[in-house]
Amino acid sequence: MKDKLNIIKIGGNVIDAPKALDRFLSDFAALKGKKILVHGGGKIATEIGKKLGIETKMVEGRRITDAETIDLVTMIYAGLINKKIVAALQSKNCNAIGFSGADGNLIKATKRPVKEIDYGFVGDIEDGSVNTSLISSLLDQDVMPVVCPITHDGNGNILNTNADTIAATLAIAMSKKYETNLFYCFEKNGVLRDVNDDSSFIRELKRETYEDMKGRKQIFEGMIPKLDNSFQTVDKGVHSVYICNAFHLSSLVNNTNPIGTRIS
Amino acid sequence: MKDKLNIIKIGGNVIDAPKALDRFLSDFAALKGKKILVHGGGKIATEIGKKLGIETKMVEGRRITDAETIDLVTMIYAGLINKKIVAALQSKNCNAIGFSGADGNLIKATKRPVKEIDYGFVGDIEDGSVNTSLISSLLDQDVMPVVCPITHDGNGNILNTNADTIAATLAIAMSKKYETNLFYCFEKNGVLRDVNDDSSFIRELKRETYEDMKGRKQIFEGMIPKLDNSFQTVDKGVHSVYICNAFHLSSLVNNTNPIGTRIS
Repeated sequence: MKDKLNIIKIGGNVIDAPKALDRFLSDFAALKGKKILVHGGGKIATEIGKKLGIETKMVEGRRITDAETIDLVTMIYAGLINKKIVAALQSKNCNAIGFSGADGNLIKATKRPVKEIDYGFVGDIEDGSVNTSLISSLLDQDVMPVVCPITHDGNGNILNTNADTIAATLAIAMSKKYETNLFYCFEKNGVLRDVNDDSSFIRELKRETYEDMKGRKQIFEGMIPKLDNSFQTVDKGVHSVYICNAFHLSSLVNNTNPIGTRIS
Repeated sequence: MKDKLNIIKIGGNVIDAPKALDRFLSDFAALKGKKILVHGGGKIATEIGKKLGIETKMVEGRRITDAETIDLVTMIYAGLINKKIVAALQSKNCNAIGFSGADGNLIKATKRPVKEIDYGFVGDIEDGSVNTSLISSLLDQDVMPVVCPITHDGNGNILNTNADTIAATLAIAMSKKYETNLFYCFEKNGVLRDVNDDSSFIRELKRETYEDMKGRKQIFEGMIPKLDNSFQTVDKGVHSVYICNAFHLSSLVNNTNPIGTRIS
């Protein structure tokens, strides 16, 4: 039987609120067994960028990562946010270790090719590039990776990569060795039947139901890539994917009155 | 016989000059065997601090690390500088992994107690706190740690710690398992008989000669703590300590026309 591994992704709604982050990190630290935390960016990069005179560049609604922006997000994601999380987890008896994709060659990416838009220093993860043996060796020593949304291309360039994609890539790669559960935490309790009612979350979402809800516009824009991604991740061997609220994580992991949506 | 380990510390003179840094990192990547890089800060923290309106605070000639300054140096040292070095080493076929003291609980420190001066978030390293088993496990996997001058106190606080001290602490701790050589790189070729003549470096400095030169004021202020520290490090079991120029590192490690001062 495969050992279990839980991979949890948190985003800006948790990272930007110090009390919420602290509460979440206590829950994460208390989870038994092998685990990996993947974190996104949060508003602080934009705030510090403003002070440094680095404007957010958008082309056709897409964010562009130029040279000064990649330096900014490297400082904030791999430096400030990652180390604050790691230090906080250490204080909660969780031996965490911070990672960008460059560290230990954890995740290699390719700079997105310039077509209509030059996205700048944005990386698309290379297939099969996850250094799974390094992660396994750390997990076996009870050292838990905390991964920020920064990768590298192997040519010395640091690249900006979506945290959801990093979490999914890690889950797929690790599922060869571990029974891997992936938890996408966001501000709601799961996929809701009624977007205004947090108690209307669906416990288990199957592809047919999803397609049906999408057809009836019960599932909205932002959720569509998240869910498409989740179904693909399950198809690629990940044991389960959950969409949930960070504060109900323990209920799902420990299966005690679970609140959240399982994608299956 | 013990396996060999080389620990190299570089400072601002290399970090602040992109071409020099690239050349040094090529040399470091080419060094055979187990190795650790410890890097200092450099001017960029001061420059970015200025843009962010964070002033350098000094009390009686000593730098104070307040809350906004520790955030700044965490961003710059653990984020920008550390990840640029790691990504560059990856491109040179050296599987580097970045570390602050918080990562993997690598180095624990105590916030310096407030006496006449409150230094703020400055950490004095706790004896015996180096996680040597984690470092050994990484070195055995050909993964080379790159350590920035940031530690933690185990209570969630990130602390600023001198890079020379981090290098010495790592060397002492690792020397139980490895024949450890420590290289302090700076802008000169070593300890000079004549401060204006870079070719006047002393190949081997013994304590008697050092005390004699100090008495005759041949060795100056800045060098005194560095050398006192180096002699103490040798006394604590480190095989050898070198004071050298970053660009002559290979000559010392490979013992080909070595340029630098060995402290013994």
